[in-house]
Amino acid sequence: MFYHVKELQYNAKPDRPDPVYAKKLQEVLGGQFGEITVMMQYLFQGWNCRGEEKYRDMLLDIGTEEIAHVEMLATMIAQLLDHAPIEEQEQAAKNPVIGAVMGGMNPQHAIVSGLGATPTDSAGYPFNARYTIASGNLLADFRANLNAESQGRLQVVRLYEMTDDKGVRDMLSWLIARDTMHQNQWMAAIEELEQRQKPIVPSTFNQKYEKQEVSYSFMNYSLGEESSEGRWANGKSMDGQGEFKYVSEPKALGQKPALQPAPGYIHGTPPTNPKQ
Amino acid sequence: MFYHVKELQYNAKPDRPDPVYAKKLQEVLGGQFGEITVMMQYLFQGWNCRGEEKYRDMLLDIGTEEIAHVEMLATMIAQLLDHAPIEEQEQAAKNPVIGAVMGGMNPQHAIVSGLGATPTDSAGYPFNARYTIASGNLLADFRANLNAESQGRLQVVRLYEMTDDKGVRDMLSWLIARDTMHQNQWMAAIEELEQRQKPIVPSTFNQKYEKQEVSYSFMNYSLGEESSEGRWANGKSMDGQGEFKYVSEPKALGQKPALQPAPGYIHGTPPTNPKQ
Amino acid sequence: MFYHVKELQYNAKPDRPDPVYAKKLQEVLGGQFGEITVMMQYLFQGWNCRGEEKYRDMLLDIGTEEIAHVEMLATMIAQLLDHAPIEEQEQAAKNPVIGAVMGGMNPQHAIVSGLGATPTDSAGYPFNARYTIASGNLLADFRANLNAESQGRLQVVRLYEMTDDKGVRDMLSWLIARDTMHQNQWMAAIEELEQRQKPIVPSTFNQKYEKQEVSYSFMNYSLGEESSEGRWANGKSMDGQGEFKYVSEPKALGQKPALQPAPGYIHGTPPTNPKQ
Amino acid sequence: MFYHVKELQYNAKPDRPDPVYAKKLQEVLGGQFGEITVMMQYLFQGWNCRGEEKYRDMLLDIGTEEIAHVEMLATMIAQLLDHAPIEEQEQAAKNPVIGAVMGGMNPQHAIVSGLGATPTDSAGYPFNARYTIASGNLLADFRANLNAESQGRLQVVRLYEMTDDKGVRDMLSWLIARDTMHQNQWMAAIEELEQRQKPIVPSTFNQKYEKQEVSYSFMNYSLGEESSEGRWANGKSMDGQGEFKYVSEPKALGQKPALQPAPGYIHGTPPTNPKQ
Amino acid sequence: MFYHVKELQYNAKPDRPDPVYAKKLQEVLGGQFGEITVMMQYLFQGWNCRGEEKYRDMLLDIGTEEIAHVEMLATMIAQLLDHAPIEEQEQAAKNPVIGAVMGGMNPQHAIVSGLGATPTDSAGYPFNARYTIASGNLLADFRANLNAESQGRLQVVRLYEMTDDKGVRDMLSWLIARDTMHQNQWMAAIEELEQRQKPIVPSTFNQKYEKQEVSYSFMNYSLGEESSEGRWANGKSMDGQGEFKYVSEPKALGQKPALQPAPGYIHGTPPTNPKQ
Amino acid sequence: MFYHVKELQYNAKPDRPDPVYAKKLQEVLGGQFGEITVMMQYLFQGWNCRGEEKYRDMLLDIGTEEIAHVEMLATMIAQLLDHAPIEEQEQAAKNPVIGAVMGGMNPQHAIVSGLGATPTDSAGYPFNARYTIASGNLLADFRANLNAESQGRLQVVRLYEMTDDKGVRDMLSWLIARDTMHQNQWMAAIEELEQRQKPIVPSTFNQKYEKQEVSYSFMNYSLGEESSEGRWANGKSMDGQGEFKYVSEPKALGQKPALQPAPGYIHGTPPTNPKQ
Repeated sequence: MFYHVKELQYNAKPDRPDPVYAKKLQEVLGGQFGEITVMMQYLFQGWNCRGEEKYRDMLLDIGTEEIAHVEMLATMIAQLLDHAPIEEQEQAAKNPVIGAVMGGMNPQHAIVSGLGATPTDSAGYPFNARYTIASGNLLADFRANLNAESQGRLQVVRLYEMTDDKGVRDMLSWLIARDTMHQNQWMAAIEELEQRQKPIVPSTFNQKYEKQEVSYSFMNYSLGEESSEGRWANGKSMDGQGEFKYVSEPKALGQKPALQPAPGYIHGTPPTNPKQ
Repeated sequence: MFYHVKELQYNAKPDRPDPVYAKKLQEVLGGQFGEITVMMQYLFQGWNCRGEEKYRDMLLDIGTEEIAHVEMLATMIAQLLDHAPIEEQEQAAKNPVIGAVMGGMNPQHAIVSGLGATPTDSAGYPFNARYTIASGNLLADFRANLNAESQGRLQVVRLYEMTDDKGVRDMLSWLIARDTMHQNQWMAAIEELEQRQKPIVPSTFNQKYEKQEVSYSFMNYSLGEESSEGRWANGKSMDGQGEFKYVSEPKALGQKPALQPAPGYIHGTPPTNPKQ
Repeated sequence: MFYHVKELQYNAKPDRPDPVYAKKLQEVLGGQFGEITVMMQYLFQGWNCRGEEKYRDMLLDIGTEEIAHVEMLATMIAQLLDHAPIEEQEQAAKNPVIGAVMGGMNPQHAIVSGLGATPTDSAGYPFNARYTIASGNLLADFRANLNAESQGRLQVVRLYEMTDDKGVRDMLSWLIARDTMHQNQWMAAIEELEQRQKPIVPSTFNQKYEKQEVSYSFMNYSLGEESSEGRWANGKSMDGQGEFKYVSEPKALGQKPALQPAPGYIHGTPPTNPKQ
Repeated sequence: MFYHVKELQYNAKPDRPDPVYAKKLQEVLGGQFGEITVMMQYLFQGWNCRGEEKYRDMLLDIGTEEIAHVEMLATMIAQLLDHAPIEEQEQAAKNPVIGAVMGGMNPQHAIVSGLGATPTDSAGYPFNARYTIASGNLLADFRANLNAESQGRLQVVRLYEMTDDKGVRDMLSWLIARDTMHQNQWMAAIEELEQRQKPIVPSTFNQKYEKQEVSYSFMNYSLGEESSEGRWANGKSMDGQGEFKYVSEPKALGQKPALQPAPGYIHGTPPTNPKQ
Repeated sequence: MFYHVKELQYNAKPDRPDPVYAKKLQEVLGGQFGEITVMMQYLFQGWNCRGEEKYRDMLLDIGTEEIAHVEMLATMIAQLLDHAPIEEQEQAAKNPVIGAVMGGMNPQHAIVSGLGATPTDSAGYPFNARYTIASGNLLADFRANLNAESQGRLQVVRLYEMTDDKGVRDMLSWLIARDTMHQNQWMAAIEELEQRQKPIVPSTFNQKYEKQEVSYSFMNYSLGEESSEGRWANGKSMDGQGEFKYVSEPKALGQKPALQPAPGYIHGTPPTNPKQ
Repeated sequence: MFYHVKELQYNAKPDRPDPVYAKKLQEVLGGQFGEITVMMQYLFQGWNCRGEEKYRDMLLDIGTEEIAHVEMLATMIAQLLDHAPIEEQEQAAKNPVIGAVMGGMNPQHAIVSGLGATPTDSAGYPFNARYTIASGNLLADFRANLNAESQGRLQVVRLYEMTDDKGVRDMLSWLIARDTMHQNQWMAAIEELEQRQKPIVPSTFNQKYEKQEVSYSFMNYSLGEESSEGRWANGKSMDGQGEFKYVSEPKALGQKPALQPAPGYIHGTPPTNPKQ
């Protein structure tokens, strides 16, 4: 169960309205790697957690923090939209600055949400719950989380570069720092799990059932061999179970497919010589 | 540019049709972590690559391989659908085995694709390109890739457990082995990049602009302190720049938000005492 | 069955083209509360209606009217797009007014629909049939309809404020008036149904099976008690069956969840001490 | 900012696993009117609230409660999925009961989430943030909320009828009671706002600018006049500003549309007689 | 503007309920090529029509007919859902026939729509307006229409094979016949337009601006030359402007791409040797 | 299986960056008729092909070519985004040209993809696999393909008109030429199949089971008879099996629907006079 306090986790006060920036900032609220995604992701991983209690507790700690980040961003966006111009186009056209603002806004910020934040990304596309990852395997999911915090911090940094509003930058500097922690956190949790199990997910599948001939082969399907220069093509494999091998000219080993005709009730393409 | 050869990368021959299993197998063809996703992800990362040639080459190698995996799965699913029963419900109801098959099939496999594979997941939801991740920052993206191969191998292993068809398992054992390689590959590529830059993405953002007071603090937003027992709350941070700190009772530091009334042309909630 | 007449229900003639406004106007054509939504909603409620004939007839009356509104908006948008500039960007950049128009247009109005209206909203997101509400319970659905007409009229009014084109405003004044009627209509229909059954949907569920201890309690999960000042926290409940009660400090009454480990074939997180 | 306590708001303990029911119960977790929707809806309405503090507080109270409902449902679904059979189809086919379970499950509950709840509806379709309604006009939004609680309670009641598991019914009886309160709550809040402003949303638009001739007319577009028998076609309008009027044979008042040919660069249909 | 009459275009009376078939029949109501799609497609093509009046009139004729088809299917589905069993799973499991029905139904038909049709396809995926095609070029669009009627008739025929309910088949025999007409209709309209303009869409683009060297070449990118046996690789081209040519070994003619590094504010992958 | 060569099929080198045009060009990469769609469509038709080998081979030839087109467009878009301005809004507002560029860009090109192409359309909406058509009936599918190449060429031509960048136009002239070939190709393949079977899809359904009275009737549902002037209303039907007939005043032939009340457990609208 949850409780709310009225104060934000950290300040969310812009120096001045900026409706075009409001549109852009939506990315880290409702985008694929926005705060809604990580909120949902950590909460669902926590609620579905069938592992040790400390993981469940940790996931719900950070999931609860992310709700507060959603709140900060929503509050910031609402203020960036204060007094957004929605006047007649004719007037706007006469003033290119206003015109650019009106052209660059998300029109739904005026028409649909009445100057409020929306659960969408910077292209106006709604948050979609297929973004949420919770597989029941914590090592897999912590890798998803490390990725989410990496993509997320990258996007916040780009947004930091796109404004000189001190109030906005102050809030972003908080989110960037928390993402630094969260990348560290998932790296730490991954290390802990990798030390306990093998690093290949899922570690409980007996490798004798996989086609081990190709478990450590890099296959060169693209003409040219620059790809042979990487760590992935040389030396001991990362799981310590094999040696990387570079296959310069991989061959097709499977059949040449030939499907049977469909039964009549499917009304597929009729056979070429139906009378034969 | 691309060329095609008719033979599959590896065999895709089921022992017998199984339209219910065909529906399930769709997950690793058209799901969030299916082969279409990784095909698109690696190709777009390769085409957008502004880094060293060896990364571009490597990405296009593996992206090209993934097209072959899409092909193998599509071919397998079409064969699993051979002779799928679509007879009248009345007949089916008399034979519970057929009834279960008909209830468990994806009806679009008969009505829409005429016993062919579809670019959808096991719930019948179509592949959506928002699954594709390509950020222009290779370390971020390689983490996305490691996650994709972890989720993907986990799903293929679960599907392996759900059938005893030897032909299907033979093909899956190939895909599982390739996912072993691909997890190893991304771990190797990540290690290489982390050694060259700092592990926090993006490494080029000057940390002095982030709110460093909270860059290494684990905040306990959930009553109970089991979360203090993990590596993420103790010892040196993974990036080597700080010390993890456990904040038992994190406080709100931000303002209590109070938004201004909307301008009249927005027609929001009218003020309570309009005459004042 | 349906018939069409060529004349529109009311005029849809703009004074002049305005492709940026055309993009905005799409909201009330193809948005969540656009005319396509209410058209689909009333028609499906009518076709699915298992109640009295007068409700079915009324629903199909208004559903049929909404097709005419879709027609008016589509016609208006096509005219607003007349002669939309799609010239080379270089030229446009020299003329900021044209540049703003080109930046503010939905590019699909030129590239995809060739200066025609599209079934999308003002952010370019397509109409999605999950917007359509038809539950088989008319009181529930009439509340959905009252909401749709409230959101819809609000959006049309906002769009009215965003133009000074007399022809556009003339058409919008018609739609606003019809929404006035439709809000009145659903309020009337709701009153009629509420008088006949109880106001809580569904009225046919025996309340003795619900946890009646909390059927009239407002729970204060957010620190601070401003929420105690509303009608919802004081006095007789609106259904006349209870008394509102304000719970200042609601407690958790449920269990502390602890899920069982997943079976082996799921390959979830391996148990911490696998040997025990 | 938010805090979490480990105990659930109310019990969520099924008597026994039931993976087919787990799939159905997803509707009120991730469906259009599931708990994720109302959680998002109330939180966003609260964060965007530009009206009196008591409304903001109330919205965040109930929004915070809904997070707890999401938590209860997720916990329940994970337990309903305990030991879900995912064995080979052949075995299942021999046992029609198991076969029916396997056919009736959402396969993603095994393959994707590893026996965990997912943020999707009962058809496996993901939660989509376009469900979330927050317009900046509280009267409009409270109508949306009353509808959501009406549709939601109706769906929970239907799900109550679909199981005889006492533990599940116990939890549902709590949710049904809370929905009783929440319908009462929104009715109370609506009454309060309607008394203060006029009931037609938005109340701040001057009605002289709408086409008042048709503001109170019911138009009969469907042959047959059963629709004339309702309250909506007789007597004083609900807003007290007019008299309902029944228009038996509404006429088209608009123009017969005739669009101009598209400019050449659009490459639309070439004119029939291009030389003329 | 539109009018409605209460009678259906043709009978829609099943002999008996069949909720599993109801789910399947949804495909041709709300699927990619269902009646909602063609209804929307023909109406939008009509409303956006900038060509001769006879095309606009024809499009609105057939668009209006399709609304009646949506109505017939919705009515049929509601009746197929009469008395759908939604009893407790335990009971169902004892009776495999009921179990199969319950497993095979779309659960939303009970929980969400209360035994009514929904605007979704047979996998439960909602109609999406991106299915609707209206380009402003009638020849292009008539080809879209011919395709829609071909896919649509194919799907209805498959559904005809999947039932022996005489009432259902009677209605389907009507829809199949209308699709026969509609395929004929679009073929006729296409022939008329192709005779007037050239058959390549758009006919108004001056071919001298296209790379004419490859305007009639079939390129063999797949090892093996079976594709050389078709009409598309031999003889005069269909537009009469060229001769088909088979290119056995097509070569890459473009550059080897090499992108510039991103500017610093993008925080892409840092250059390998940043100090150089 | 597939191989990649580093060179592009044809040049993709813009004369200069143009981020606004990059957004527009996305339409033919990730839109409904973009290269991703046709790539997926031809590959799936090929992999699912149960007809003659020459069709499978041909489909995989062209599908493989389309991957190369995706590659060319992605490469072009990345270059058009070089140096895209993402500076502070304040600066931009002072320079209307930069302001227009920033307003007209897709913000995700900077924030999400770091100046890379994305698998989305020009409105920022992601590619959705429901666009992909593969029915198992080649005549139906070749009509889908002819439509896709018609819509596709039309869109590329419109984009050609929207730029004067010689490098961009050079690449588009290649794509337009290939679309000329591909329209020719599908027309040829259609002609071949139509000569072998009857032109109505599916040709294998015995027409005696369709309602032949209406198989050749054009029905005039829209007041006014301009639609009688087309080829579709006069003369021999295109399939040679009948004579077109114009029905001026089509009548409703079906029942007036009246649905049964829902069973109690559905909690639909309660009957008006429950005691009777």
